[in-house]
Amino acid sequence: MQKIMAVNAGSSSLKFQLFEMPSETVLAKGLIERIGLKDSVISIKTKEGKKHEQTLDLADHDQAVKMILEFLISLDVVKSLDEITGTGHRVVHGGETFASSALVTEEVLKEIDKLAAFAPLHNKANATGIRSFQEAIPTATTVAVFDTAFHQTMPETSFLYSIPFRYYKEHGIRKYGFHGTSHNYISKETATFMKQDVKDLRIISCHIGNGASICAIKDGKSLDTSMGFTPLEGLTMGTRSGNLDPAVVPYLMEKENLTAAEVIDVFNKQSGLLGISELSSDLRDVTTAAQEGVHQSELALSIFIKRIKETIGAYAVEMGGVDAIVFTAGVGENSAVVRSGAIEGLGFMGVELDEALNQSNENRDSARSISTDASKVQVLIIPTDEEVEIARDVVTVQNEK
Amino acid sequence: MQKIMAVNAGSSSLKFQLFEMPSETVLAKGLIERIGLKDSVISIKTKEGKKHEQTLDLADHDQAVKMILEFLISLDVVKSLDEITGTGHRVVHGGETFASSALVTEEVLKEIDKLAAFAPLHNKANATGIRSFQEAIPTATTVAVFDTAFHQTMPETSFLYSIPFRYYKEHGIRKYGFHGTSHNYISKETATFMKQDVKDLRIISCHIGNGASICAIKDGKSLDTSMGFTPLEGLTMGTRSGNLDPAVVPYLMEKENLTAAEVIDVFNKQSGLLGISELSSDLRDVTTAAQEGVHQSELALSIFIKRIKETIGAYAVEMGGVDAIVFTAGVGENSAVVRSGAIEGLGFMGVELDEALNQSNENRDSARSISTDASKVQVLIIPTDEEVEIARDVVTVQNEK
Repeated sequence: MQKIMAVNAGSSSLKFQLFEMPSETVLAKGLIERIGLKDSVISIKTKEGKKHEQTLDLADHDQAVKMILEFLISLDVVKSLDEITGTGHRVVHGGETFASSALVTEEVLKEIDKLAAFAPLHNKANATGIRSFQEAIPTATTVAVFDTAFHQTMPETSFLYSIPFRYYKEHGIRKYGFHGTSHNYISKETATFMKQDVKDLRIISCHIGNGASICAIKDGKSLDTSMGFTPLEGLTMGTRSGNLDPAVVPYLMEKENLTAAEVIDVFNKQSGLLGISELSSDLRDVTTAAQEGVHQSELALSIFIKRIKETIGAYAVEMGGVDAIVFTAGVGENSAVVRSGAIEGLGFMGVELDEALNQSNENRDSARSISTDASKVQVLIIPTDEEVEIARDVVTVQNEK
Repeated sequence: MQKIMAVNAGSSSLKFQLFEMPSETVLAKGLIERIGLKDSVISIKTKEGKKHEQTLDLADHDQAVKMILEFLISLDVVKSLDEITGTGHRVVHGGETFASSALVTEEVLKEIDKLAAFAPLHNKANATGIRSFQEAIPTATTVAVFDTAFHQTMPETSFLYSIPFRYYKEHGIRKYGFHGTSHNYISKETATFMKQDVKDLRIISCHIGNGASICAIKDGKSLDTSMGFTPLEGLTMGTRSGNLDPAVVPYLMEKENLTAAEVIDVFNKQSGLLGISELSSDLRDVTTAAQEGVHQSELALSIFIKRIKETIGAYAVEMGGVDAIVFTAGVGENSAVVRSGAIEGLGFMGVELDEALNQSNENRDSARSISTDASKVQVLIIPTDEEVEIARDVVTVQNEK
């Protein structure tokens, strides 16, 4: 039995969950926001229901980490820091270097810094989180868990764009894919739920949250995914556009007097559900408005669903069929409207939704089937858990050491 | 019985076919290249096999049109120009103004000029061709036939991008789609071949040439198509990239020191099969090299096929199933490798290719089925004929006058 911390460090935030392994019990979890700004907010909750919330000024991630660890001691979650034998850190971009989670060495940290070229804000913040924890708990094994790693199994035919080949060789321009930790977790949970070997399954994993991506998983490996060089590509998301004609970029630059980077910023932050509905990036707001007949919200919802559906179709064909379609993450787990919309019209492929199960709120926290018994394809809801997947990876790396 | 001319005017070229209607017999066809340059080349062939080829200097489209008409008289195709009672002109962009072919008036010409904002080179050349013919045969009915018109039936959910709604309202940024004349022709020929009402069919029309697009046709109408705001979007093509993460644009601008317009130019002219293979934009060359084991050509061919396949999957789902998958245009009609690759893996949807029929060279000029009798979905090859579709539209507009 040991204690493992899963960490997700952003540029001004830090989320963590402390697990007891191998039981995967969450001993404590917390969030610190506004790090480096005035009035940082820290909030921690323990398994026993103890809570700690405080507003104070935290100059940097080092201070934030020290604060978390002090609270964990004062809340009796741990007696001393060396009880935490491992920390696992979400790192957004692992490029082509990391096809699995990695024991963090100086070499690895340098590589994470280098890969910041692809994800400037994220990788730098992730590395800062790693350094702060290494300093605070020098005895713990530090492991980096990459959003891109699971997708490194994609074949060239999936990851190459149809642009001059040298852009891939010289600049690394290719599809990397993201949400890999979640898709990996889902693939394994699906196999467990279906009591089958993951190698015998063709899974379409729909991670639909504010960010959204779909992954075609065959033989337990990512065969294709909808996000690309950046998390902009693919589906319609909360504020992201997903796919569109790249020729729109220079056209908009001229019409709106923007730089190319500004256009991409609009596509990342003011598009998607928000852009179409002109109301909200939150699917719940858009759904409510759509049900009240607000036209642009109806459109936003329909387009959001259409893109999911299209991608399911594309990946079913790519895998020569599908055994399970899985919905996960905020929207995927909670929006019956999106799920039934995405499955509608798949009847000809033998997919049959049980609408009562789809609407049901029972067993919300566990994996469950929402397809009929007659359905040739299992439709599942599986709550994702990237944190536990990170903790599992820490244990795996510890054992390999 | 009357004579109708179908015209496709480019910026320095002009193609025509003269039809006898309603028999749809081609009386003559020809091509003039290098208009406005030194050594323009004119080449005309008549139904009786008479040929005329000549190199001379043609200053502009007016001169080119006069030259064509003189040759048609001297080759005994027509006795006088007023025998040609109508001319139909391919116009690339009809925007949201034209949902069908239009009788050309001064108003219509102005609109075509205005829509040149979306397709600068094409629409201007198309308008020039129209003016030249109007001057040369003032008695003929002039009809504009738009590449985009057939797709004007697409619902908002198909044509809107997931970007701020006002970009559509203010700048007309949306999916327009192209190859509409071909997809329209294919939809009708498919219904004829299958002896069914086009309204009862769900057709996936794959127009795969040097440019390539797929259209989902339901109820005889375009429901969705793969080309977008410009013909860059969608499939991998001879030299065009099709879909990719729009965030690649600013990244490449910086790495290669290009403007956004130059990046899009690379995506249009140096990408696709040519970009991946670094060998050729011609699928025949790429196929040969792939069969010899040249890696980048294998990749180019596989990616080319993968994108077609994915789109077939997406559109099948969008229509809730499919009755016919049709291949047309240069590659679609001639590449058995592409067809069988695109159909491979669709077995779970009840699609079954007859590989012997797929490979056969019999009846190459007519519509034919290449699926097995057991296949739930008809797979067809139908040679496209945009020129005859243009001539048909001229007659339709004449009758409506």
